[in-house]
Amino acid sequence: MDQTKQETRISTNSKGVDLSRREMLIGAGALMAGAAISQLGLVNSAMAAKVSSGAEGWPWPYEKVDPAQAGETAYHHWYKVFCSQAVTTGLFEQLRESVGEPWTNFPIESISFGAGGMMGWGLTCGAPVAGALVIGLAVPKEYSNAMIHDLLQWYTVTPMPVYVAQKPNYQGEIPKTVAESPLCHLSVGKWMKEADRGFGSDERRHRCASVTASVAYRTAELLNEWKDGTYKPGSAWNGPGTVGLPAQQNCMSCHGSDIPTAPR
Amino acid sequence: MDQTKQETRISTNSKGVDLSRREMLIGAGALMAGAAISQLGLVNSAMAAKVSSGAEGWPWPYEKVDPAQAGETAYHHWYKVFCSQAVTTGLFEQLRESVGEPWTNFPIESISFGAGGMMGWGLTCGAPVAGALVIGLAVPKEYSNAMIHDLLQWYTVTPMPVYVAQKPNYQGEIPKTVAESPLCHLSVGKWMKEADRGFGSDERRHRCASVTASVAYRTAELLNEWKDGTYKPGSAWNGPGTVGLPAQQNCMSCHGSDIPTAPR
Repeated sequence: MDQTKQETRISTNSKGVDLSRREMLIGAGALMAGAAISQLGLVNSAMAAKVSSGAEGWPWPYEKVDPAQAGETAYHHWYKVFCSQAVTTGLFEQLRESVGEPWTNFPIESISFGAGGMMGWGLTCGAPVAGALVIGLAVPKEYSNAMIHDLLQWYTVTPMPVYVAQKPNYQGEIPKTVAESPLCHLSVGKWMKEADRGFGSDERRHRCASVTASVAYRTAELLNEWKDGTYKPGSAWNGPGTVGLPAQQNCMSCHGSDIPTAPR
Repeated sequence: MDQTKQETRISTNSKGVDLSRREMLIGAGALMAGAAISQLGLVNSAMAAKVSSGAEGWPWPYEKVDPAQAGETAYHHWYKVFCSQAVTTGLFEQLRESVGEPWTNFPIESISFGAGGMMGWGLTCGAPVAGALVIGLAVPKEYSNAMIHDLLQWYTVTPMPVYVAQKPNYQGEIPKTVAESPLCHLSVGKWMKEADRGFGSDERRHRCASVTASVAYRTAELLNEWKDGTYKPGSAWNGPGTVGLPAQQNCMSCHGSDIPTAPR
């Protein structure tokens, strides 16, 4: 089946899906069922064989990374380079030691733009973007697509931060919040509202450093499971197949009860 | 000034900013004034010297790229690999020819996850994410941060698609729409509403291929200006400095008239 037919099939299959208010909420099981690997994922997987990168030796060799060490490195680097480059640093640091090239050759400064959801625009949190890049470098398409879905889903539904730094820069307790989205604006904004702390506060900085560490830790766990042969993809969200266009699962967060229907 | 003080200053400087409904709209000049390089950008620039990537030879050597050829390559690769890998392909193709290593060594499949705003989640459009990565690889921080802001801003306010393929896969006219956001969901969704065409339609596919080509073209233009020494950064949006946290400029798109105030 060629790509045109495959992508068209995504849309055709999803005709007539009507979603109630309840089903629009995060984590609604019905939305996830039957999509163990999303259709979008399968399309990408199928086409991987057709298009050469021009680069030899991909995916890059992977050796298991210590998640806690990746987390601690990411935590402390957040204070220097913010989320996306800090996640990359946490994961690359050990791979440069254990594997060497090509991990030693890639300039991780190039991914720093993810900070603040791309330079403070509040778009996708830079931590999972950086995690996705490392997954994309280390893991073949038939697993990487599912693994990136898992990372986004985990980020979306998990009370954050998870990771507790061994040597934190802030000593007190901070609240955990569920972002219900991989977007920086929602992730940071919900936490700031709950904590009643400003963007420049020590608590918010410790929070984002800890979220960054959490993402580095979780990415290392997923990569290690794949290396061990124990990785099992979760139920992947399929925006185009479910609501008719690329979308998150939290429609009501922006649309309220007036959720438009996508043209079919 | 250390990083802690610098990032705190972003917040301190922005105390007491109150934004009217009108000022929340896209392109409001007042929001952009006085931020030729955003404060977030300056923080990243300042810290670039402190944190080594561990990789030699960064930024990567850049030779000017033909924007139209980059656009045409990106357009046709969209049908095989979708937006983010197609932009990367459009730009890498010529750099691999003109420069060779290290452009030949990077596996561009690793960035394919940007498709559909990360695997169909409708987050940041994969085209500017891929453009940002290439800018991050080729351009030193003191210019790359501003250039990525420019690319996001241009994507946000420009009636799209701009690029007209020399050999298009769809022959008819399609409407142009302004995304008012770099998010895939808003970019695609507004176009689908205006065009009244489904996600699987030939028109939507041609539209996203053409947007992808437009981003490759615009990224090449910016990179070439920098190479020529004629690049002048635009007025960068500063979400944290203006509204107190990372954010887009289209607050009312999601919040309506009930825009919350960030804790300070």
